[in-house]
Amino acid sequence: MARIALVTGAHGFIGRHVAKQLANLGATVLALGHGNWPRSEWRNWGISDWHVADITLESLMTYGGKPELIFHCAGSGSVAYSVTNPYQDFQRSVATTLAILEYARLHVPSAKMVFPSSAAVYGCAQRFPTHESDPIAPVSPYGVHKALSEQLCKSYSSQFGLSAAIVRLFSVYGVGLRKQLLWDACTKIQRGEARFSGTGSESRDWIYVDDAAALLVTASQHATSSCSIANGGSGQSVLVKEILSHIAQDINSRCLPTFSGDQRPGDPSKQIADISVARSWGWAPEVHWPNGVSQYVDWFKAGAV
Amino acid sequence: MARIALVTGAHGFIGRHVAKQLANLGATVLALGHGNWPRSEWRNWGISDWHVADITLESLMTYGGKPELIFHCAGSGSVAYSVTNPYQDFQRSVATTLAILEYARLHVPSAKMVFPSSAAVYGCAQRFPTHESDPIAPVSPYGVHKALSEQLCKSYSSQFGLSAAIVRLFSVYGVGLRKQLLWDACTKIQRGEARFSGTGSESRDWIYVDDAAALLVTASQHATSSCSIANGGSGQSVLVKEILSHIAQDINSRCLPTFSGDQRPGDPSKQIADISVARSWGWAPEVHWPNGVSQYVDWFKAGAV
Repeated sequence: MARIALVTGAHGFIGRHVAKQLANLGATVLALGHGNWPRSEWRNWGISDWHVADITLESLMTYGGKPELIFHCAGSGSVAYSVTNPYQDFQRSVATTLAILEYARLHVPSAKMVFPSSAAVYGCAQRFPTHESDPIAPVSPYGVHKALSEQLCKSYSSQFGLSAAIVRLFSVYGVGLRKQLLWDACTKIQRGEARFSGTGSESRDWIYVDDAAALLVTASQHATSSCSIANGGSGQSVLVKEILSHIAQDINSRCLPTFSGDQRPGDPSKQIADISVARSWGWAPEVHWPNGVSQYVDWFKAGAV
Repeated sequence: MARIALVTGAHGFIGRHVAKQLANLGATVLALGHGNWPRSEWRNWGISDWHVADITLESLMTYGGKPELIFHCAGSGSVAYSVTNPYQDFQRSVATTLAILEYARLHVPSAKMVFPSSAAVYGCAQRFPTHESDPIAPVSPYGVHKALSEQLCKSYSSQFGLSAAIVRLFSVYGVGLRKQLLWDACTKIQRGEARFSGTGSESRDWIYVDDAAALLVTASQHATSSCSIANGGSGQSVLVKEILSHIAQDINSRCLPTFSGDQRPGDPSKQIADISVARSWGWAPEVHWPNGVSQYVDWFKAGAV
C-alpha cells in the first residue's frame, strides 16, 4: 500500500470509511474537507491530518501534500439539494474535481486518483443490469454534475496522462448514515407511520459502505491514463417494499408499509449494476442486503450512536 | 426584436459582431467582459453599456440587468491555450456558463440564452457532413469544456425550464481576426515564407463572422426549454491548401505554399457541417469563402486596421 493518501470529504459517510480502510492498510491519510469533529474522532477514522477547508487549488497547495493516492470523496450527496441549489452543487462537485485534477497535474502527476461517481449518471437506464458502457443520461443536476466530473477525469487522463479511476456507486448505505431511505424509513416506522411515497416497486442496488470503500481502494490499483470505470453495486436489485418490510419486521412488526402510488418524475424505477468490471479487479461485495439492513436497524434501535 | 440584450465577451471577435447586429435590430446592448477599448469604439459596435468584469454570479448581479436575450460569447477561443492552461480555460468557459445560467434561473427566468459552442465538441467526427445528433467526442480541453458547457445549458433547460439554444460554430473568420490560420498565413506569405505544417489536405468549414453572428441572433428566436442545437458553418469543406493558395495569389503570387506533411494528433483531418437545422430556422450563409478570404486579405494588406 502506498504510504501517503489524500482523502477529500473525509468527514462524509463514504470518505471516512475510505480513510479507515487506507489506514488499516498502513497508509498515512491526509484529509481535507468540511465537518466539525474532534481530533479523537478523526484519529479513530484513521486520519493523520485533518484540515477544514474548501477543496480549491489554493487549499490543496497548502494542505494537499504529496499523496501517491487521491480519493476525491468530497461533494454534496443529495439529488434534492442539487435541484434547489444547482450552482452550489456544481461548486461542490465539479469545481472541486477540477481543483483536484489540476493539483495532481501540477504537483503530483504520478498520483493515482479515484473519483466516486454515481449510478445517477445513467438516469433512467435502458438495460439491466446496467453496464459501464451503457449510455450516460443523467436527469438531476446531481447526476449531470457527476457526469461532468467524470468527463474532466477522462480529459485529464487522456490529455495529461494522469492515472484515474471512476467508481459509479449505486445505493450506498450502512451504520452511521443519517439520511436517505433507510434512515427515513426507520424513523417513520418507529413512530408507527406506515405510509410511503412511491409505488414500493421501485428497485435499487444496495451496496454496504464497507464494500463501497473497499472497491474505491481497489480501484486505486486500476487507475490508468485511460481512466478505468467500474460500477459499484451488489449486482442485485431489491424492491423498496422488500426493504421496508424487512425494516418493519425488525422495528415494529405491526407497521405494514403502504404506498401512495405516485411516481416521481425522473426517479428511475429500477437500478441494478453489472459489476463484472469490479469483480475482474478481484473485488466482491461481502455484505448481503438483509444482513446489512439488519445491522443498520440494530444501530438505529440502539439510538444511532 | 427584444429591447434589452446582454452580450458577454463583447470585446471578442464574435461577441462584438453579435452586439453590432443586435443594435442594428434596435436592441439596447449591455455588455460585460474583458478588454481595454475606448468608449467611442464600443459605442461603434452598438454597445450601450460596457463593464469590464469577470463573468461571475456577483458581476452579473451588479451589471447583468434584466435582459430578454443573453448571448454568452465570453470564453477563451484557443485550443492551444486550453492544453497548456486547462484550469483557466475551464474557468473562462464552463464556470462562466454556469454563472450565466444561474443568473438567468434566479433573476431573468424568461430570458432566452444563446451559447456559441464549437465544432470541437465532435472531435474527429465519423460522418460528413456532421449532424447535430452525431456523437460528441471532444479531444482537447477546449472541446471538452465546450461540451460540458452545453450539458449545463441542457440541464438548466430541462430542469428549470430556461430557454436556451446552442450553436456549434465551425471555423469562424473575418476582417478583424488577428489569430489563427488566416492571420498566420497572411503574415508568413507576406514575408515570403511558404512552408506550413500539416499536409494541406486538412479541410475546414469556414463561416464568415457576420454569418456566424446572424445565426446566433437567429438562434435566440429558437431558444426553448428543450435546448435547440444547430451547427454553424457554410456546409462546405475547403482544403487548407486551397485557402493558402488563394491567399498567396492575393498577396504574393510567387510564394507557393508547401507542407511539412506532419499530422497533429487529435487535429481533425476534415470538418464539414450539416447546416439543415440552421437553414430550417430561415438562416443561410451569405459569404462564400473565396469572397470572404479576399476581403480578409484586402484588410490585411491595408495594414489590418
